[in-house]
Amino acid sequence: MAELHLLSPRGFRAGGAYAGIKSRPTNDVGLLVCDDPAGATAAAAFTTNRVFAAPVAVGRKHIAGGRLRAIVVNSGNANACTGKRGLADAMAMCKLAAAQVRCKPGHVLPSSTGIIGHVMPMDKVGRGIVEASQALGASPDHALAFADAILTTDTRRKSAAATVKIGRATAVIAGICKGAGMIGPRLALGEKHATMLAYLTTDAQVSAPALRKLLAPAVNRSFNAVTIDDHTSTNDTAAILASGAGDAKVNSMPAAKKFLAALTDVCQSLARQIAADGEGATKVVRIEVTRAAGDRDAQLIARAIANSPLVKCALHGNDPNWGRIVSAAGMCGARFDPDRATLKLQAVPVFTRGRPAAFEPAAVSAALAAAEVVVALDCGQGKSSATVWTCDLSKDYVTINADYHT
Amino acid sequence: MAELHLLSPRGFRAGGAYAGIKSRPTNDVGLLVCDDPAGATAAAAFTTNRVFAAPVAVGRKHIAGGRLRAIVVNSGNANACTGKRGLADAMAMCKLAAAQVRCKPGHVLPSSTGIIGHVMPMDKVGRGIVEASQALGASPDHALAFADAILTTDTRRKSAAATVKIGRATAVIAGICKGAGMIGPRLALGEKHATMLAYLTTDAQVSAPALRKLLAPAVNRSFNAVTIDDHTSTNDTAAILASGAGDAKVNSMPAAKKFLAALTDVCQSLARQIAADGEGATKVVRIEVTRAAGDRDAQLIARAIANSPLVKCALHGNDPNWGRIVSAAGMCGARFDPDRATLKLQAVPVFTRGRPAAFEPAAVSAALAAAEVVVALDCGQGKSSATVWTCDLSKDYVTINADYHT
Repeated sequence: MAELHLLSPRGFRAGGAYAGIKSRPTNDVGLLVCDDPAGATAAAAFTTNRVFAAPVAVGRKHIAGGRLRAIVVNSGNANACTGKRGLADAMAMCKLAAAQVRCKPGHVLPSSTGIIGHVMPMDKVGRGIVEASQALGASPDHALAFADAILTTDTRRKSAAATVKIGRATAVIAGICKGAGMIGPRLALGEKHATMLAYLTTDAQVSAPALRKLLAPAVNRSFNAVTIDDHTSTNDTAAILASGAGDAKVNSMPAAKKFLAALTDVCQSLARQIAADGEGATKVVRIEVTRAAGDRDAQLIARAIANSPLVKCALHGNDPNWGRIVSAAGMCGARFDPDRATLKLQAVPVFTRGRPAAFEPAAVSAALAAAEVVVALDCGQGKSSATVWTCDLSKDYVTINADYHT
Repeated sequence: MAELHLLSPRGFRAGGAYAGIKSRPTNDVGLLVCDDPAGATAAAAFTTNRVFAAPVAVGRKHIAGGRLRAIVVNSGNANACTGKRGLADAMAMCKLAAAQVRCKPGHVLPSSTGIIGHVMPMDKVGRGIVEASQALGASPDHALAFADAILTTDTRRKSAAATVKIGRATAVIAGICKGAGMIGPRLALGEKHATMLAYLTTDAQVSAPALRKLLAPAVNRSFNAVTIDDHTSTNDTAAILASGAGDAKVNSMPAAKKFLAALTDVCQSLARQIAADGEGATKVVRIEVTRAAGDRDAQLIARAIANSPLVKCALHGNDPNWGRIVSAAGMCGARFDPDRATLKLQAVPVFTRGRPAAFEPAAVSAALAAAEVVVALDCGQGKSSATVWTCDLSKDYVTINADYHT
């Protein structure tokens, strides 16, 4: 079997073009089209930042009916903090895409990523949309062309896919995403709202309300559990399009459970890839908090550890400086009792119930030099757990973000 | 008039010694003694981290009676996460100091700062306390000897002083502090609990309950309003000792108001010095949030801006990348409406009511190269305001914290 990609699920085509919005000559306008309008459904989650970009405002309205024919996206400009002009530009992107795809503008989801506070170069964007639509296709190369169009400071493409057997039929779920900086998504469906962008496709037959219900938990356990700098973007968007072009029907509880498990796997793979490609990152860090007093406590502790610059610098230096980790757990407002807690770095206990554990610093330091590091904190208090993906903090993060000039 | 220092208020002596706890040969044990036991009062605020060091646990008990004869402090070891052994060591420090000063161990406040999770080298600490007590005096040099004993990654000493006229008498208030990393104090009096350490002296006559009531607001508007990495330490402590050896009596509302204003000035000067000496800092940043919907909103917004690595890197690069600032305000959960907000960098409007303001990037960038930068966000919503001090994020922060090995 050939490797699965974003366009492996039946019913989708995509294209990309370079319109000159990004200074780097790689695709910066992309179009993803769902070709089975009859049974097609969609759901999306957006940033909860109160400062949300124009495409997010428009996207929330357009997703309300649970149907999308297309996603039009640009990189290089976030169309955020751009006032009424920005809203008109986001709508214009939908109209231009709709004219090419021959659908209603209300069935197009717009997305933008890049610098905040600059008016969109609509002449370039318009040309890009036309070019991308002329380049539409369903090959692996077409998936790559679309994936490239959403990248900014990313150093590599991010994609994942899975198949799930439902009855005698098999559904394919695939996705791509971007995100390297300004990553602290808190996505919500409904009225709330990175620049994390994630687009998912499936050929399963699934109703819009069911798709909505399935996207929420999958997003919470993946994109909402990744943080690079804990900065929730104005543009974060995760959208799934179900073409219904396959034979698998997600219309029973067992089918929904299977679909959710596969969807969560795809989203978690994407989230992990975002952490691995964090600005300046040299390693992925998985924070696993277990036996916390409650779900909120587990989340607060995992995020506090993941977001501490002191912890991230220590991990960058392969330093088993566990006091920074334990103190992060204590400072976040969660219920936490150090006398009941045990901390392991790469499976080596370094702190046990209130006291330092005897360990060989050189050996733990060597273990921390891995590409993926696991920080496991057993709170010894309750039954709640949380997993958060992050990365280390290197000098390159500073270079990228001190020199990314407006 | 000679410059005021920590021992300018009458009734105090101090000393310091190098006991070999720190690898760098500068004082690492200090003793501050209040010589007027009759009228002396004290108050202290401690870290609110649920993981609090042994000296904090002991200090909370010893401050309960509102009286202190001495503060004994060491740097190089935080005595945190050290279990029962740590508690015994903190008590032993008090006993050793008490024996030298001839007071009750319960009238000694212990403080420690340094690495977490290492057992205290009590032989060295003990020798240091004896040496420091033999070196006690009230000269400016004695103040410096004590101030040196609390420094870790600090690159300079931090001190401030003020005089306040109450009736015909004049009280002196002075203070020193340390703090460069793991700075995100949330100090509280009472049952709650940096490694920010701050010690204040005054010769005013003020009751212990009054001193407690005065320290709280002064701490909230100073130490609790400074953040370098938003990491609340296990050891943060701010203590004030009033010798009562002067003629000024803080026993009326007008006197309390005057005293509070002077105390707040001293604490704010110290807080600003902490931000200026933040690990790797090249500039101080003052975040001024005005006309926020409520006090909590103002605080949340100011802290979110101050703690965003993206904002701090942009300021390090003198980049007027205001989108990061506005989006930080929107992501923190505070009530915030970008359409009503105006943002000024060094007094230049860059964002006005939902839209980019026309400004000369090169001119603003040049203005951001100052030693002190002001980020002023007018929310246009209410009457609440908040000021937070922080610093930029440079590669040196990463170097210091990736290489500070356990």
